[in-house]
Amino acid sequence: MRSADSIIYLDHAAFTPICAESLKAMLAYTDSRYANASSIHESGRKANQALYSLRKRVAKVIGSRPSEVIFTGSGTESDNLAILGFARANRQHGNHIIVSAIEHKAILEPAKQLQKEGFDVTILPVDKQGSVSVADCLEAIRHNTTLISVMYANNEIGTIQPIKELAKELQSLKMDRLPVLHSDACQATGMLSINVNNLGVDMMSLNSSKIYGPKGIGMLYIRDGLKLQPIIHGGSQEGGLRAGTENLASIAGFVQALEIAESKRNDEVSRLMKLNRYFCESLLSSVDDIKLNGHPENRLVNNLHFSIKDIEGESMLLMLDHHGIAASTGSACTAHDLKPSHVLMAIGQSNEIVHSSIRFTMGRGTTMQQVNKVLQVFPDIIKKLRKSSVLTTYGYAKN
Amino acid sequence: MRSADSIIYLDHAAFTPICAESLKAMLAYTDSRYANASSIHESGRKANQALYSLRKRVAKVIGSRPSEVIFTGSGTESDNLAILGFARANRQHGNHIIVSAIEHKAILEPAKQLQKEGFDVTILPVDKQGSVSVADCLEAIRHNTTLISVMYANNEIGTIQPIKELAKELQSLKMDRLPVLHSDACQATGMLSINVNNLGVDMMSLNSSKIYGPKGIGMLYIRDGLKLQPIIHGGSQEGGLRAGTENLASIAGFVQALEIAESKRNDEVSRLMKLNRYFCESLLSSVDDIKLNGHPENRLVNNLHFSIKDIEGESMLLMLDHHGIAASTGSACTAHDLKPSHVLMAIGQSNEIVHSSIRFTMGRGTTMQQVNKVLQVFPDIIKKLRKSSVLTTYGYAKN
Repeated sequence: MRSADSIIYLDHAAFTPICAESLKAMLAYTDSRYANASSIHESGRKANQALYSLRKRVAKVIGSRPSEVIFTGSGTESDNLAILGFARANRQHGNHIIVSAIEHKAILEPAKQLQKEGFDVTILPVDKQGSVSVADCLEAIRHNTTLISVMYANNEIGTIQPIKELAKELQSLKMDRLPVLHSDACQATGMLSINVNNLGVDMMSLNSSKIYGPKGIGMLYIRDGLKLQPIIHGGSQEGGLRAGTENLASIAGFVQALEIAESKRNDEVSRLMKLNRYFCESLLSSVDDIKLNGHPENRLVNNLHFSIKDIEGESMLLMLDHHGIAASTGSACTAHDLKPSHVLMAIGQSNEIVHSSIRFTMGRGTTMQQVNKVLQVFPDIIKKLRKSSVLTTYGYAKN
Repeated sequence: MRSADSIIYLDHAAFTPICAESLKAMLAYTDSRYANASSIHESGRKANQALYSLRKRVAKVIGSRPSEVIFTGSGTESDNLAILGFARANRQHGNHIIVSAIEHKAILEPAKQLQKEGFDVTILPVDKQGSVSVADCLEAIRHNTTLISVMYANNEIGTIQPIKELAKELQSLKMDRLPVLHSDACQATGMLSINVNNLGVDMMSLNSSKIYGPKGIGMLYIRDGLKLQPIIHGGSQEGGLRAGTENLASIAGFVQALEIAESKRNDEVSRLMKLNRYFCESLLSSVDDIKLNGHPENRLVNNLHFSIKDIEGESMLLMLDHHGIAASTGSACTAHDLKPSHVLMAIGQSNEIVHSSIRFTMGRGTTMQQVNKVLQVFPDIIKKLRKSSVLTTYGYAKN
């Protein structure tokens, strides 16, 4: 087996390894001095105070009030709470919601659930580059629309959405604060500004495991005054919106990771932008019949997503894996699903090429040397696969 | 401030500190070698294999199949998934469920939510010792009852419920596997056998943070073939029942803690039983007008819950806290709630004494020396409080 260090890990959109500072912050709170934050005794109060100070630190990063920060068990749970929680709690104001066609399954599946519960859901189409049109979105709004959810940047093809513009336009249309705008910023954190006032969103989901924090922790920003129904009922933790003993250690690890992601953001974006351009241009010039998916400019600087004619995504992955390079075909959350990616279908890819994609997502550990190793190996992999693909076509492969 | 070591921590029902072995198991999986368990590349597959082997280890402890183990974000989430998930998914078979009056809020609140959704909920009363009657439960079953939820042992007063007997009686009544029996075993783990076949339950909730594992992780046992609706929708993780990247490190910590809890169980139960008897008898004989709540024999050996006439629970807590002793009045999850405990109301306590309770819950770290320290301090605390209570009655306290 290969050691962890020798792997060229280019799947940061699926998972980022926990950073040393985040782990250290976690460990500080696994101490028995911090008990159940709802207990009244000293070690309970200490946990409660720690929790409040962590909440304040998040609020500072995203420009909100501490009371607007709700810790959850994952980015997926945050998305679910936003969609299910808001739509259900505000049903008397309307039963129509709008979500974009390229949302993560953590939005699309709750939206489907709402349809089963009698809600109307508009799935907003995107253009060929994966961009939501602000005009289309505004046009889709009805008198009974309570919620719009558009992700900040797409996890598969990296396209950044016009959240700020959408929020601005919505402002003048709102009646009694409705419809509210939710944005899944799980992939954007550490790459784009996540100041909620600057963005103008009413709810925003973040995920720890995409920003070098621990798995199993996320948060939902909820603008003060918005009413949601919990999806996990019980104790009065998290303002009654998320029952269960607060996971102090993981929250501490997440908050530390969030602060670091924000402080490193400008430098990382500059560094990755250069790497990304070099990586992209080199691949486009060294591989035939290759196409970059997503917006050419307006995209996450750590994301490259290609369609490569006549090559099956999974074959590329396995060959890369053999060379110690970890990439993906798209979302890890649907990797074991044989259905074509809903994101690629939404940008109008034909059935022929929808299975021919490969995603490289870079991160803090990615170096020019690693990129060069991929550039050295990948064109040959494609040549080999195309050769065997020709053999298959002519029926020789069976012998 | 007091150091953690000098605190006499007697609130193990609210929270147990993470044990060294569990923390070590967690740390082994915070390594970057374990990526997103849904990813196809080597570090994804490694995470997926690790997850399967952890699931197998849980299955071995509880006597189930690995596929029957669903990891969640907390005991509360497990309870919610069981109640909401099963009732909603089986609504076509009936809209009636039964829960006992002394369930944790993680069961009662979802049951209330179901009522809002049009379900009928029978709240099963308990006797003065907090025991559910099997006969009463069987009598409450209707033709449209799909689910019964009775906790294994109560978190406040410690009474153990006749789960095995109930399951046995239910067996002969079941039509097409309904009604199913769920049991919240969060407080029972490490104290009672949690073999699902021995118990005969169809679903069972466990919680890591009550058994010296990390916070933020729990599990639900679901007998093969039962249909549930997820409460968190999205990716296909955990058999499609709980979307979100699997929290491998916390799962590993939990599984390690579970194995240790089970292996230490017999010894710990013997040790705590002696301590408990001594603690209980000494307190009963050294404090006037004190009454043990819950069943005198059929109770968790780490739990002691008393009502002390004319003394407010919170005053006792604060005085004990001042002496470095951490206890509670009841459930931490409702500690900041001024409403009287629903468990004490259910066992028929009068309004006068319902606020006069104190709970001591012992654990692995509890020693005879610590118990003796409490015995030395507590009777004096009660005397002092009673004195000031008399003063208050006569109006002197205001001067």
